[in-house]
Amino acid sequence: MAVYTQISTESLEDFIKGYDIGPLISHKAIVEGVENTNYFVRTQNGPCILTLYEKRVDPEDIPFFLSLMAHLAQKETLCPFPIPNRQGELSGTLANRPAALFSFLDGMSVCVPQTEHCAALGRLLARFHNDAADFEGKRRNTLSVQDWPSLFRKCGSNPNQICSNLSDEINHELVYLKQQWPQDLPVGIIHADLFPDNVFFIGKNIVGLIDFCFACNDILAYDIAICINAWCFENNETLNFEKSRSLLEAYAQIRPLGADEKRALPLLMRGAALRFMLTRLFDWIHKTDNVYVTHKDPDEYLKKLRFLRNTDKIHNNRFI
Amino acid sequence: MAVYTQISTESLEDFIKGYDIGPLISHKAIVEGVENTNYFVRTQNGPCILTLYEKRVDPEDIPFFLSLMAHLAQKETLCPFPIPNRQGELSGTLANRPAALFSFLDGMSVCVPQTEHCAALGRLLARFHNDAADFEGKRRNTLSVQDWPSLFRKCGSNPNQICSNLSDEINHELVYLKQQWPQDLPVGIIHADLFPDNVFFIGKNIVGLIDFCFACNDILAYDIAICINAWCFENNETLNFEKSRSLLEAYAQIRPLGADEKRALPLLMRGAALRFMLTRLFDWIHKTDNVYVTHKDPDEYLKKLRFLRNTDKIHNNRFI
Repeated sequence: MAVYTQISTESLEDFIKGYDIGPLISHKAIVEGVENTNYFVRTQNGPCILTLYEKRVDPEDIPFFLSLMAHLAQKETLCPFPIPNRQGELSGTLANRPAALFSFLDGMSVCVPQTEHCAALGRLLARFHNDAADFEGKRRNTLSVQDWPSLFRKCGSNPNQICSNLSDEINHELVYLKQQWPQDLPVGIIHADLFPDNVFFIGKNIVGLIDFCFACNDILAYDIAICINAWCFENNETLNFEKSRSLLEAYAQIRPLGADEKRALPLLMRGAALRFMLTRLFDWIHKTDNVYVTHKDPDEYLKKLRFLRNTDKIHNNRFI
Repeated sequence: MAVYTQISTESLEDFIKGYDIGPLISHKAIVEGVENTNYFVRTQNGPCILTLYEKRVDPEDIPFFLSLMAHLAQKETLCPFPIPNRQGELSGTLANRPAALFSFLDGMSVCVPQTEHCAALGRLLARFHNDAADFEGKRRNTLSVQDWPSLFRKCGSNPNQICSNLSDEINHELVYLKQQWPQDLPVGIIHADLFPDNVFFIGKNIVGLIDFCFACNDILAYDIAICINAWCFENNETLNFEKSRSLLEAYAQIRPLGADEKRALPLLMRGAALRFMLTRLFDWIHKTDNVYVTHKDPDEYLKKLRFLRNTDKIHNNRFI
């Protein structure tokens, strides 16, 4: 669950006056997103979403996220668009936090994605990569392969308390991935966090994607790797090749994959598994009494990492 | 904040199929209510609210709450009405919990009620008491004057750790209130928890009231006492007599108050202050790691109780 900042009706009414969307008629804090507080807001003009950016988001990154969403919303990628205020700005301040209003997106995330959901995701991801290709903003991936060692160091010796020899296992993985990480694959804007809870469906059709707070410049196929890890495993332990093939084939219909990208996918998936395992491990170890943040289990991604390390299982064109 | 049970889109879709409201198009868990999990739900027919009753609500009480709301919604009291399923039942089961769907109510709670809000509340409360007069359901108030001593005993010696001699102070209060508690005042259905967060406004007009999970049979004027305590204090320390007079005058225009009820109000307010202080104290002492429950400060009601005990301040027709 999200961080949670409470706002008063009175302060929200003042904030809404800065927008040309009519007076406020309803607002409810919703349990959505991980890094931010979100409110469902209704004004005379209809529903929208208010986001308060909490401290884990660097305020300097917010213009990048908002202008990217505005850029995508003008293209084919389905996503909420930031609503400009009367001054034409995409964000303001509420409860001492950067705050922005977004168009409301119908649809719901699926808990257990089926093959058709994975195919729909593949198409949307490729469209997103294509649509973002001419976006001029830049943001470095602060959770990329070069950042994992320092993230791991901040976990101290705690990993071994979760699982014996886990520190050695991670160290070994870090060395291997640093050596092997591909250098010449096509890069561009990636979403970098396209988990099932960030994609809304009605039936098997995608209505849109949300939560761009990890979007950055990086290897495009790394975004695919994150998605396969998040969408195509069964019980976190084995990859469902039917799902991963559907995702990849649907993707490649929109944006054809190079042979080098296909070849690198198993390694990128291994890296993606390590990245989410490390951030979850870090959050687990440093979890505070902040009552409004749900800490996700690092074990899920440890299992996936161990599966992926046994590369025999995923080579041989079984999933590409 | 509320308890929080996560439900999957898939399980909610199945649940919604039992209702004649069209297919599900959106759902979001919202931060509303204290005892339950609530979801904002949209189907083809429009918005509604899903409530999952959590363990602090006795399942045997749920038919009382739901039939009371259905009764009120047919009258002038503004409140959500429970939506019957295809079998005509007002509740079902979802995520192993009793679950009900309600009509969606626009409007927002006010953080700092002004005099006009208090007057609007007084009118609504009187209308609620009148409208519920012919409701046939019965529910004992399980947090009435006779239940406070056992609630206090469950706090053990902990109150003194919060404030020295607090246990003696509470004991003294319990004895006094038991002796003085009125026996012959008009009784009926009371809401018993009509705090500002349970009343929705648009501007100064009430749109409706929510959260009937404490509704029960008790002294009608005790419901007024709860409201004055919750709506008419300034900084928890002094009563704003303009606000309390507005509330009472507006109430009496709809349901005239007897001289005995007016006379008893200061004592009922003192009892109401003790009741909320005790339940907050109990929750404070027994607070668990359940991350989704906000624990309210018992100190607010201790301050109010101390103000009210000095009855010279509130007699002399200053607020009635």
